[in-house]
Amino acid sequence: MTTPEYSPGLEGVIATETSVSYLDVDIEQILVRGYDLIELAQNLCYTDVAYLVIYGELPTPSQAKAFCDRLVAEAEVPDELYQLFEMMPKSTVAMDALRTGLSFLAGYENPELLHDNSHEANLEKGIKLLAQTPTLVVNSYRALNDMPIVRPNPDLPYMENFLYMVRGERPDAESLDAFDRIHICYIEHEMPNSTFAARVIASTLSDMYGAMVGAVASLKGPLHGGANEAAIEFLMDINGEGGPTHAEDYTMGKLERRERIMGFGHRVYMRKYDPRARFLMDYIPKLAERIPQGQDLSSIYSTVENVMYREKGLYPNTDYPIGLLYYLLGIPIPLYTPIFLASRTAGNVAHVLEQHDDNRLFRPRVIYSGGRGLKPPASPISPM
Amino acid sequence: MTTPEYSPGLEGVIATETSVSYLDVDIEQILVRGYDLIELAQNLCYTDVAYLVIYGELPTPSQAKAFCDRLVAEAEVPDELYQLFEMMPKSTVAMDALRTGLSFLAGYENPELLHDNSHEANLEKGIKLLAQTPTLVVNSYRALNDMPIVRPNPDLPYMENFLYMVRGERPDAESLDAFDRIHICYIEHEMPNSTFAARVIASTLSDMYGAMVGAVASLKGPLHGGANEAAIEFLMDINGEGGPTHAEDYTMGKLERRERIMGFGHRVYMRKYDPRARFLMDYIPKLAERIPQGQDLSSIYSTVENVMYREKGLYPNTDYPIGLLYYLLGIPIPLYTPIFLASRTAGNVAHVLEQHDDNRLFRPRVIYSGGRGLKPPASPISPM
Ligand SMILES: CC(C)(COP(=O)(O)OP(=O)(O)OC[C@H]1O[C@@H](n2cnc3c(N)ncnc32)[C@H](O)[C@@H]1OP(=O)(O)O)[C@@H](O)C(=O)NCCC(=O)NCCS
Ligand SMILES: CC(C)(COP(=O)(O)OP(=O)(O)OC[C@H]1O[C@@H](n2cnc3c(N)ncnc32)[C@H](O)[C@@H]1OP(=O)(O)O)[C@@H](O)C(=O)NCCC(=O)NCCS
Repeated sequence: MTTPEYSPGLEGVIATETSVSYLDVDIEQILVRGYDLIELAQNLCYTDVAYLVIYGELPTPSQAKAFCDRLVAEAEVPDELYQLFEMMPKSTVAMDALRTGLSFLAGYENPELLHDNSHEANLEKGIKLLAQTPTLVVNSYRALNDMPIVRPNPDLPYMENFLYMVRGERPDAESLDAFDRIHICYIEHEMPNSTFAARVIASTLSDMYGAMVGAVASLKGPLHGGANEAAIEFLMDINGEGGPTHAEDYTMGKLERRERIMGFGHRVYMRKYDPRARFLMDYIPKLAERIPQGQDLSSIYSTVENVMYREKGLYPNTDYPIGLLYYLLGIPIPLYTPIFLASRTAGNVAHVLEQHDDNRLFRPRVIYSGGRGLKPPASPISPM
Repeated sequence: MTTPEYSPGLEGVIATETSVSYLDVDIEQILVRGYDLIELAQNLCYTDVAYLVIYGELPTPSQAKAFCDRLVAEAEVPDELYQLFEMMPKSTVAMDALRTGLSFLAGYENPELLHDNSHEANLEKGIKLLAQTPTLVVNSYRALNDMPIVRPNPDLPYMENFLYMVRGERPDAESLDAFDRIHICYIEHEMPNSTFAARVIASTLSDMYGAMVGAVASLKGPLHGGANEAAIEFLMDINGEGGPTHAEDYTMGKLERRERIMGFGHRVYMRKYDPRARFLMDYIPKLAERIPQGQDLSSIYSTVENVMYREKGLYPNTDYPIGLLYYLLGIPIPLYTPIFLASRTAGNVAHVLEQHDDNRLFRPRVIYSGGRGLKPPASPISPM
């Protein structure tokens, strides 16, 4: 018997066929439904791109309007969701509260629709989840921090309402513009761990809600969505312990202890620049003027980037600039990963649709490194 | 560029190295930590095997006693869990309630321990989850069905307490024996979808609770754990519509409509007999005497098995006999998949431990079948 080939972490292994997106690393392009993601982020707004990702084509103006109206109309959640968040122990972390909230929400779906995996039924559930996720994201965080609930404002468009709920007040145009473009950058990214987790779960013919709950659980991890929070915390630690002039030493110290610096490296890009990070970087200087520590943080940002390239040959991934940008936009840090989840909901909905439309159960094999031929005793060991 | 190799559903693809278990299909053996699972089920009891799966070795008598005592001592959950279940809409399905409950429970964990992925910390959380899962399984179902909560009885051993909570009264020895052996058969099975989902999620360095929540979401699916409920429902449908003499026609009709019969077929065994199904089958005649429809259901069971083999060359998997056995044991059908999840918790804990002990992020690639080179319009389509 020959040992089967094995690629740890499924590096380079094809998990599925998809028409949603593709990282064309050679030309440093993120293809989303045939478009360059960066061009979409430059020209369009999040709801346009969400429509594209979910339906496969850009909307006409009237389709766009109907889609936006629907996202606004369906943003409210049952009152019990707010009660649920208020009932949670205050030590609950925001991503866990969001995971519980999404899971709980499934109970409000008509059970027939819930378990109907047809394209039409999934579309209906998926769009509702896209509409409701910002409400859950913001209010799970607020309830855990003893802040009053903010209900979605039906007079505001989807993204403006989201930032309004985050801040508790209507956002200025500059903030909204940056928030919307970041949301586009996060919308979809081929087969990252959370999208993969969602498809793996969906492949048992489990439902859209379960797949989304799995995606939250995955995205929480510091090697994945959790990296945006870790990235800004690292910059702030440096700023707290000496500021820009200490950035180099601080980073070197961490590397010498063989610790990872979150927001750098990527399985697929690894030695190339993440196009989203390059695009978003340009927003830093402008937004840095908005808060007192902005200049210092952006100077630390650059130093760490240079050290990482010089020492490890690693480039930032998109979580590195986004951690800083969210901070400059005044967003509370524990909301970064939950907001990322909200952006990625459109992408994950598209993937669950695709999985259920042409399903095959994910069920891989293993290399076994354990023992063989052992014989158990004749009767139980545990006291009876 | 050549098209990369691609195996839909990762069939035959090695996902990881593991010392927990292996399906040695050639010799029709399920190896668990070096032992034959069926021999374990014949000789030992669930808590012995759970210890083996989690720690890698069978316990000494004093280790077994300490482990059992701990499972009993840690079975209670915070009162808010019971409130949560009572607050859920009655349309919530049991697996979704369990998923929400496990997710909610994470908020009661000390956040430092929650996010500590060391072997020791994972062991502590994993054993607590093993202790608490039966309490959640039973009470989520009871609350949704307006039955009073049953708290774990600290005077009963782990498995006896589980069946006591399921039934609301202390079980007889025959029931407990069968329930325990079925639990062993379900404990661990290499890399089924739910175990894979748990490891995929854990590989972002997300925590044990998140991985378990993902496993619930996966196990719910009818192609996976949901099959035990579907299997008995099929036998009961036949019994309701004409009984044993109609079993052949009924099965043929379903096959002619190209519908799947749940409880048959398996990615890995496919054309071999699942050793668990073979072992458990022998319990049917004895337990069939316990209820009036027992003989008819077991006769339908055999007819369907014969038709499936004759028509499709497919053998039963373990969910086929277990669906019937649970029914003969008087367990409410919506509890079958949640109970399966409880049995599998030991296996999934072992896999999360192994994943975190030597982690690499799961991040596969795709074959892209979408468009290229499209250009977005110069400005947003959605109304601003
Ligand atoms: C994203 C990530 C998990 C991809 O990892 P991967 O493809 O599995 O690569 P590996 O973890 O095997 O790392 C390969 C090498 O690069 C190093 N490396 C990768 N990312 C690193 C980082 N952020 N900081 C320091 N070293 C890093 C590893 O230590 C390893 O070095 P070694 O071979 O000397 O041990 C990894 O780059 C990482 O942990 N980054 C930080 C988390 C992050 O930003 N995640 C968001 C991704 S969008
Ligand atoms: C378990 C299962 C998903 C494995 O499937 P897989 O390896 O992905 O195999 P496929 O789904 O590609 O099925 C292969 C062929 O067998 C047929 N088949 C497999 N299981 C079948 C079943 N239970 N009933 C009828 N036909 C079945 C498929 O229709 C397919 O036939 P086709 O090639 O003519 O279309 C599959 O056997 C199944 O759906 N079984 C029923 C659910 C179940 O019992 N799950 C519990 C597993 S422990």
